Amino acid sequence: MGKIILGDQLMERSVIGIDLEDRGYQFGDGVYEVIRVYEGKLFTMKEHIGRLYQSAKKIKITIPLAPEQMMDLVEKLVAENKVYDGSVYMQVTRGAAPRTHMFPTPESKTKPVFTAYTNEVARPGNLMKHGVKAVTAEDIRWLRCDIKSLNLLPNVLAKQEAAEAGCYEAILHRSGTVTEGSSSNVYIVNRGEVRTHPANHFILNGITRQELQKLCIENSIPFVERAFTLEDLFQADEVFITSTTSEIMPIVEIDGKTVGNGTPGQMVRMLQTLFEQRIIAESKAHM
Amino acid sequence: MGKIILGDQLMERSVIGIDLEDRGYQFGDGVYEVIRVYEGKLFTMKEHIGRLYQSAKKIKITIPLAPEQMMDLVEKLVAENKVYDGSVYMQVTRGAAPRTHMFPTPESKTKPVFTAYTNEVARPGNLMKHGVKAVTAEDIRWLRCDIKSLNLLPNVLAKQEAAEAGCYEAILHRSGTVTEGSSSNVYIVNRGEVRTHPANHFILNGITRQELQKLCIENSIPFVERAFTLEDLFQADEVFITSTTSEIMPIVEIDGKTVGNGTPGQMVRMLQTLFEQRIIAESKAHM
Repeated sequence: MGKIILGDQLMERSVIGIDLEDRGYQFGDGVYEVIRVYEGKLFTMKEHIGRLYQSAKKIKITIPLAPEQMMDLVEKLVAENKVYDGSVYMQVTRGAAPRTHMFPTPESKTKPVFTAYTNEVARPGNLMKHGVKAVTAEDIRWLRCDIKSLNLLPNVLAKQEAAEAGCYEAILHRSGTVTEGSSSNVYIVNRGEVRTHPANHFILNGITRQELQKLCIENSIPFVERAFTLEDLFQADEVFITSTTSEIMPIVEIDGKTVGNGTPGQMVRMLQTLFEQRIIAESKAHM
Repeated sequence: MGKIILGDQLMERSVIGIDLEDRGYQFGDGVYEVIRVYEGKLFTMKEHIGRLYQSAKKIKITIPLAPEQMMDLVEKLVAENKVYDGSVYMQVTRGAAPRTHMFPTPESKTKPVFTAYTNEVARPGNLMKHGVKAVTAEDIRWLRCDIKSLNLLPNVLAKQEAAEAGCYEAILHRSGTVTEGSSSNVYIVNRGEVRTHPANHFILNGITRQELQKLCIENSIPFVERAFTLEDLFQADEVFITSTTSEIMPIVEIDGKTVGNGTPGQMVRMLQTLFEQRIIAESKAHM
């Protein structure tokens, strides 16, 4: 387990406990990020920490650290815990205060609680090579999915539904319009065009989604942000998802129906190669 | 602060800390209840604890206590902390486990975390007498509002909006259909008829709502469960809300517009009297 961050300090995990009245525990009143570590190097840290500040701002939490200070702390944490292939989980809540829905008043001097810890996690190499299965499920989440908040119960329930069906992910839809996965963005590929839901309040604009978009543009691959239906999903040449931990993951079966010929398609394999180069390039830039 | 409950034990609040990876803290993966204490007696405890088990069941959490055992513990807690007019807050989460959306496997032996603590809180007598103001706001919550879950960020944001407008509550609506308040049920009164949203997945069926329904039936007051619009709300003879802590609270102004003649109406005052008698009756039944 090693060290964690609490506020602006690194400390032993064993010594800290969260307050019963931390608003994260009672309301899910907070936001979070997961950053991937590849061979000891933080990948797209700046983007993730930037989004953490944006999410916090959307729910009017002022993080009591400067982004640069947070980046320093997180780098120290990864070094201290000697993370090789793994991730950093970080969250900030509105802090501990006597329970009432409205925000604590400034006079209460309630301070947001920033915590972070690390995990060692292997990359999902085998799954990325062979692809995974998915189920479809209704998207019953709130209407501000653009905020990476701690209100994740509908995501949890959808993911569990997938797991119980022996699948990796649940692809969510609102009345037949595909939005995203329970913890990923979803794409279809047709005639060399990559298509995904626009980045509005119905989805979380993933950092991996943003990286993918850049890679597509740089490599003249059409990247279209336009919603598609379940019917489009089932008829697509290829389907894949992206997320920080799943990277670029082919979907080869949905609700028991084969996607394409049931193996990862040409486009997703090309995108995986480009993403791999991107990881290596960033890693070298760090040295 | 005094004692709290953790699991099946009463202990000093100061000694306990919640795990960083408690799923309540990371996903809002849990459910809760607030029970009112009047003059040292728990009011409708059985109903609240019954609903806690129902909410838990809906998200497939098995509470590691029998309801009778929980009732005993909560009564002990209230006695130990010498609560007179106050409340018990209680919640159960899916427990602490390495973070992943899907439920922890049975093999992980993750145990749900049950906690409870008490507060001394005066009844809102003056507000109930004179009534309070409300704003209307869009209902952006998820589609399982029948589950009393810890995913309360949209409720928090709506309540804060109300507070910033100098109001007590935000009345929520989906595309013009009134659902409920950010932490209450909402009613309109016309020609002696009490009307409220049906108890489906768009609202939480409040214990106070259920008590009110019984009182209406016992006293031959028409209680109609049929959704109404914002227009109906603004044209109603009377508007009021109910909740465990707000009891039966008249709304005398909405979005700056006066309801009726701007003072609590005849119906809400009668219902308050009946509810008061109900509290006294239950209190005597305890002796």
